[in-house]
This record gives sequence, C-alpha cells and structure tokens, in this order.
Amino acid sequence: MKDCKQFVLVIFGASGDLTARKLIPALFSLYKRDFMPKNFAILGASRSNYSDDDFREKVVFSNTSLLSKEHTQAQLDEFASKIYYEPTDTKSDEAFTEFKERLEKLNTDCDGGGNYLFYLSTPPSLYEVISQRLNKQGLSDDSQGWRRLIVEKPFGYDLATAKALNKKLLSYFKEYQIYRIDHYLGKETVQNLLVTRFANSIYEPLWNRNYIERVEITSAESLGVGSRGGYYDGSGALRDMVQNHLLQLVALTAMEPPVAANADAIRNEKLKVFQSMRTYAPEEVASHVIRGQYTSSVINGEKVTPYRDIEGVAENSKTETYVALKFFIDNWRWADVPFYVRSGKMLPTKVTEIVIHFKKSPHHIFSRDEEVQSSNNQLIIRIQPNEGMLLKVGMKVPGEGFRVKNINMDFHYEELADAYVPEAYERLLLDCIQGDATLYARGDAVEAAWDFIDPILNAWKNDDSIPVFGYPAGTWGPSNADEMIDGAQTWRYPCKNLTNDGDYCEL
Amino acid sequence: MKDCKQFVLVIFGASGDLTARKLIPALFSLYKRDFMPKNFAILGASRSNYSDDDFREKVVFSNTSLLSKEHTQAQLDEFASKIYYEPTDTKSDEAFTEFKERLEKLNTDCDGGGNYLFYLSTPPSLYEVISQRLNKQGLSDDSQGWRRLIVEKPFGYDLATAKALNKKLLSYFKEYQIYRIDHYLGKETVQNLLVTRFANSIYEPLWNRNYIERVEITSAESLGVGSRGGYYDGSGALRDMVQNHLLQLVALTAMEPPVAANADAIRNEKLKVFQSMRTYAPEEVASHVIRGQYTSSVINGEKVTPYRDIEGVAENSKTETYVALKFFIDNWRWADVPFYVRSGKMLPTKVTEIVIHFKKSPHHIFSRDEEVQSSNNQLIIRIQPNEGMLLKVGMKVPGEGFRVKNINMDFHYEELADAYVPEAYERLLLDCIQGDATLYARGDAVEAAWDFIDPILNAWKNDDSIPVFGYPAGTWGPSNADEMIDGAQTWRYPCKNLTNDGDYCEL
Repeated sequence: MKDCKQFVLVIFGASGDLTARKLIPALFSLYKRDFMPKNFAILGASRSNYSDDDFREKVVFSNTSLLSKEHTQAQLDEFASKIYYEPTDTKSDEAFTEFKERLEKLNTDCDGGGNYLFYLSTPPSLYEVISQRLNKQGLSDDSQGWRRLIVEKPFGYDLATAKALNKKLLSYFKEYQIYRIDHYLGKETVQNLLVTRFANSIYEPLWNRNYIERVEITSAESLGVGSRGGYYDGSGALRDMVQNHLLQLVALTAMEPPVAANADAIRNEKLKVFQSMRTYAPEEVASHVIRGQYTSSVINGEKVTPYRDIEGVAENSKTETYVALKFFIDNWRWADVPFYVRSGKMLPTKVTEIVIHFKKSPHHIFSRDEEVQSSNNQLIIRIQPNEGMLLKVGMKVPGEGFRVKNINMDFHYEELADAYVPEAYERLLLDCIQGDATLYARGDAVEAAWDFIDPILNAWKNDDSIPVFGYPAGTWGPSNADEMIDGAQTWRYPCKNLTNDGDYCEL
Repeated sequence: MKDCKQFVLVIFGASGDLTARKLIPALFSLYKRDFMPKNFAILGASRSNYSDDDFREKVVFSNTSLLSKEHTQAQLDEFASKIYYEPTDTKSDEAFTEFKERLEKLNTDCDGGGNYLFYLSTPPSLYEVISQRLNKQGLSDDSQGWRRLIVEKPFGYDLATAKALNKKLLSYFKEYQIYRIDHYLGKETVQNLLVTRFANSIYEPLWNRNYIERVEITSAESLGVGSRGGYYDGSGALRDMVQNHLLQLVALTAMEPPVAANADAIRNEKLKVFQSMRTYAPEEVASHVIRGQYTSSVINGEKVTPYRDIEGVAENSKTETYVALKFFIDNWRWADVPFYVRSGKMLPTKVTEIVIHFKKSPHHIFSRDEEVQSSNNQLIIRIQPNEGMLLKVGMKVPGEGFRVKNINMDFHYEELADAYVPEAYERLLLDCIQGDATLYARGDAVEAAWDFIDPILNAWKNDDSIPVFGYPAGTWGPSNADEMIDGAQTWRYPCKNLTNDGDYCEL
C-alpha cells in the first residue's frame, strides 16, 4: 500500500443523499479495513443548519443499513467522532472565511497535516464558485500539504460547457489536483479489463482487426427515470451514460498497451482512443445513432408510466431514454471494426457487459448444429451483476462424427470466496487519498469524449426529421437498433426470458 | 449417420478378456442406441471348444456388470441371439475351411450381405497367419461385400517388425481394409482436440512458436504392472504408451489444419507431424529421454512390490516403467518449441492431459503475487479423468492497486448433462462398421512413429551407460525429468497432494 498521510476530507453538498448512500459507507469500510491513517477528519459542508451531532444523526447515519454489517459499536463510535459539520453558504464570501477557520482548526485538532480533499457533491452549477472561493481562501495552494478536488458528474453539458468548466477549474486548481470521478472506473470488473488485456499473453495477439469482428457494449437498466424526470429530461441517455461511463469502457477495451500502470500512461492511451473515434457527419447521425423513449407497458402486472407522462418531463420531449450507437475507431488496430454501444432505461434486466465478437474461423471442416451455424467465439466481460468473464468456444458434441456445439468457459468473481470486493466509491476515495489519479478522468480526455458526442447532440437539435423511436417499457429498445449491425447478427440479448436477473442466461 | 449396412463381425481371440470387457459392451450399447443395422451377427472364434451357448454364458456375459445398466431383458436376449461361436485353430488350414463355412452360413441366415469385419484380438504373433488364411479362403476379397480387418496394438516391436508386419498384412488385405486400432483416438476429449483447434477462431492464431513456449503431454497411471510382468518386461512404457497413444496426441496437437474432416486429410497431416519430429542422435538420448523403474514404497499403508521383484520381470531388468522425452518438431509452426511427453506406472494419480504453455506477456505492468510470478497462460486439455478444458488466465485481485492472480476458466464434459459420452471402443467399432478410418492409424504413420522411437531403443540397447533411474512407487518419477525443462520450470504436477483423484487440483 502506498503511504496514506493524515488529511481532512471536506464534502460540499454534504446534506445530499450521496453522503449517506455512498461516501460514508465507503469511508467507514476503509476505516475498518485499516486503510485510513491514524489522523483524519471528515467535514460536511452545505447550506443546512446542522450541528455536528445533527449532521451525524440526521444525515450520515440516518440509514445505518447502508453500512456494511460487520462492525462493533466501538468502531462506529470512534469513526463517528471524526465527522464534523460546518453550515456554509457557497454564495457568500463571508461564509467561506468562517469555513476556512473551521477547517484549519479541525486540521490542527486532528493533526491533519494540512492535507485537504474537497469533494464537490453539489449541483454542477456550484463547481465553479466553490473552487473559486477555495482558491481565494488560499485552500488550493498545496505548498503546505496536498490539496485535491473531486468533481462529480456530469462534467459539462456539451463540448463548450465542458471546456469552459475545465478552464475555470484550471484557473483555481492545477490539473493534477483535479479528480473527475466516474464511479464506473471504480468497479472491479472495469479495472480487470486492463489486467485481462495486459497481464495475459493470449488475448493481446487476438485483440485487433485481424481477429475481432465487432465489439458490443451494453449498459441496461430495468428501472425507469423515477422521480428524476425534471433532471433527466434535460440530460438523456447519451449524456447520462454514454459520454462518461460507456466511453470509458470503450477506451479501456480499445486502448493500446500503456507504458506502465500509472495514471499518466493509462490516461494517455485512453485519450488516444477518444481522439481516434470517427465523429459523425450530420447526415450520418440518423443511421448510426438510434434513440428511443419508453412507452406504456405492463410489467409483472403493474402498469408502467410512459416516459412522457412522468412529472417534470416535457409533453413532447425528445429526450432519449435509450440510445444505441455504431462507430469506428480510426487507427491501425481497429480500422473497419464496428463498435456498438447501447444504454437504456426500462429494459428487461439490469446488466452491463462488453462482448468481444471474434471473427468466424476461416475454414469450416465440421458440421455445426443449426442454432450455432453462425456463432463465433465470444469473450463476454460482465461488469455487473454477477461480475465475471465468459468465453464461448466450440466443442465436440460427444458421440459419433464431429458435431460442434458452443459451450461456455467461465469465471465469476464470487468464486474468489475469500476476496473482499470493494465498492467503486471505496476504491476511488482511497486512490484519491493516496494521490493516484489512474481511475479518474483527465480534462483533455473528457473534452475529447465530448468532441465525439457533440455532433450527435447538434444533429438531434438541428434536424427534426431524426426520429425518436418508442419502445414498450420492459423490452430491449427499438428494433431499429438491430438493423445497424452488419450481416444477420443482432445485439446479444442476455436473459431475454428472465429466470434469474443478470444470470449468464442465453436466448 | 452414415449408412450402416448389415454385416457379420468376427472376433479372433474371442475367449480373451477384451471380448467381455470392451467389445461386447460397446456393441450392445450401439445396438441399444439403434446404431446397428437390422441384420448383423457376431461370431467368436478361438481355440477353446465352446458351443454358442457356452460362449454366450462363459465369455460374453460372464460379467454382465460390464454392460451399461439401462436395458430390458428382451433387449439383452435379442442381442445375445445374434452371438455365435466357432472353435477355430488358427494354425490349421482345415479349421479355416470349417470356419469359412460357418461364417458363410451365418451370413446367409442373418442376411449379412457378405460384409465381414474381422477383429484380431489375438497375440500379435497371429496377425500374419490369420490374415493369410483369411486371404487364402477368399475372405479378404471385397468384390461381394466389404471386408475389414481390425488389428489391435502393439503394431510391431520396433521399426523393422512394424514394417515387416505392414508388408505382410498388405499382401493379404489392402491398406483401406486395414483398421489399426488405438483406443486413445476413440476418446471424446482426444477428438475434441481437433474441434477445439479447428472449429474456433481464437486458438489457431496462437497455436504456434510465436505464442507457445512449450507443450507438455502426460499420461500417468497409479497402478503398476500387476500380473503382466512377463509381457511388460518385454515392452516398457516407450513401446506400450508413447509410440502409439502419446504420439497420436502429439500429432493431433501439432498438426496443420486438415483440408477436410475425413480420414485421408487428417491422417495426411498427422503423418507430416511424425515426419517432422527430429530424431535423436545416439549421444542425445541420455539427456533427452529419461527412463525410470519404480522401486519399493508404502502407499496407503500397503507395501508396493518393486518392479524388479514382480513375477516375470528379469532380476536385472532395464525395462522402463516411466519415460519422459523432450523433442522438437522441425517445421515452420513449431521450430524451437520443446515438446515434453511422459508416461509412467505407479505415479500418484491416474491422469492424461495436454498442457499448452503460452509464452509470458512481453511487457509487465502489474505486480503479481509471488507464487504466480513465473506463471504463464496455460490451456489444459484433460483427456481423463474429469474430461474437460481449463484455461489459466491472470485476473485482477479485487481491492486496491492492480495485483494479478491466476484463475481458472474451465469446462467439464460432465456439464453437458444430457450428452451420452460413448466409450472409446463403441465409437471406434461404429466407425469401422461405417467404413470411416479417420480415427484409426494408417500404416505409413505407424512406421513414421516407429522411425522416431527406434533410435531411442537402439541407444538403450547399445549404450550401457544410459541410466535407469529408480523412483519410489507413488511419486512422480525420477526428478531428472524436471531438469530437461528449460528455465526454472517443472512439469505440471496435477494433484501432488491428492484430495480427489483426477481433480483439477493444483500444487
């Protein structure tokens, strides 16, 4: 383990639900697992007028079921004693002077070493003002201790706003101080993608246009927009899922081998992927990007409210709850290999997976069962749930002749019975505390990803003829998305007939 | 299924134990599974003076536990009614005239169509005389029906005797009529080797000197020579296991993709492998071929008789009960890739497996647990027991950093719960009945395999200084065999500490 120095962690927007739902459980788990230094403090800050005890009671531990089960009361009490609160109106300079005084006193009391981590769990509109005030108070100056800033998504609304935000942040903090969080990168299976590719000698020789026919990345959610209609209608699946999470998966899948396993080397290679992604001409968007909106349906006897009827959603909204893209990466490795990415709400199951479709073998000497006539080798990397890997290979059907059948060679993380699999936030917070930005997005990469997304947003804005397809809630989205795929192929539909949510079940 | 015409199957040496142990169970199973034609007969022939009923009772069904369980009495009775016996002294021309009369009457009675399959389950010394007499009686003439001859192992004692035997047989039967059986080729997992290699697109690109470091083939037996000391002492592991079974596995592992999945195409490619195997110069044998003999030991509290004390074994015998070879295949695909083959009796477990050791990844960016520092990707093809495949790959250890651990992605044939896995003899007999010689050894290949073995036998015969290493029964053979392997590597030792015989357990 890297050196973990004492510090004070500040959560802006501390009264929001991320604090109790993700941040505190992650920090408590790190604490129990002895990954926290002896001296640290957590300081909540938001407009609400809590005392330290109020904050602990009403926010931090308002739902203790979120804490992992195994702990003693003494552990919890000691951890709680390190949590403080300071009411802070981000709009007021004065409030920030008081905030600074509280922070510095806390630092002295707890021997924080002047190391400050600022977690911005606020609406994005406050990122600028908070970082400006922190800078003004001298709190971004890291000459007397490290100073780091974690910024939550969304990072920008399009290319222009992302660039503007980067510019602002960089006028108050340096790039190496800014940690743009994408919780997908904290997932074990996502990181395992790097290990799979670069700690094994058998995949890399096959990992290119010579042997791979297409790459497919799916992130399906079985839930709808819920009560977040107002927010979601101004965002949509492309911004909410693809620009950040799914393009990160694309980058890790497609990147060249990095020089080393460190932040710069890995993020340099990811940037190159974004830079190599072919952007769409306006007239290509309709055929290469399929968008959809879920319509009414009955699931398990319950009527589902169609997207447009949700509170906060415009009556004639064109915001996509489903999006599927086909694109190319213009470099030596991936030329002519289509990448397919889709994400949607109200789909039949919750699943995130990457499917590497290998090309067919070039010469067929065995007879195949009809149903696998057209099947190729596939490597399926399951991000969630049932994290694991599955390799589909052809085997001989026992008995006379040489009939071939596809079988699965698989591995599930849960088989590592003794392994503790940390939550994404736990991993990411620890990395930031240790100063490791490998799993955080760098500013140039965020802009490069928007660079790919922007032409789609523009085409949708400017061309009314591009349809928004309806799909009944509980289905796999508009069938038009299948037509994008070359040949007689379709997307992989895991668990079309669900028996066990998220199982590796097949059509 | 190919056309399966009516026929009469003749077993020479029918009173031997192969009849009840393997042939009849295989034929009965084919019968029950509806792979036999409506009209067929089985005619036992040997010196013993049985009636049909005697033969059925005392030989064929002397041990009905060998028959697979599921059948009705009516099925068994009907099958039994198709079994006959004719006492035949192979040394007598007269006896063969009578034999022929009986066979032709049987053929008429059962409407056998003049199709005869002669199974030579006799000592090899009788192969010549029987085929000569069959020829003399006109029974090898296939103008009035097919005539096929199955020859059991051993096929020759060295290159000269194998050539002589081929020459004799070919003067009475044509090559396409001769089926040299090697029951290893009837095993499902052995055939699956072809399917794995040539029905998947992901293995073939890796299946060469660029990506494979070495190939290791092991056939271990946990039993000793038993009561066969007299026979075994004149044979040894090299003749008994390597020349036939294990070189067949080498050929299937190393062969080029065949033009088609038929007998000629596959056997042409296998022949090329044998022809490419670099033969040893006399002075290379001592360092490239390690031989051993098991010595006394106590296994599970029971004293094991050392090999040289077994009845029928010479007091100063140099016959190997263990042999390990290192050799090269001189062609574009395999240049400089060492092949390691070993076989032995009285080893810790019964296991046959092929291990493809892939090269290390060329650039290491992740830390590895110490115990897997030196481990590469491996593909393990388990021939027996627990037939299946296992791919060892590096995965991320859950938690902080990027630590790598080797895990297994595996498939076991038993997972194909609905699949009936036929016994080797069942598959091979059916193939012969259908005229498919794919899984039988061709004469030229048998000679080519002996061509590789002969220099070893000669060196052992001519050079007294080549040691025979002792190894205690129940160990993995002489440790000198490890020294053959380059680098800090050893053989794979499946189940060194046995918990479950034949499991994929590790060191």
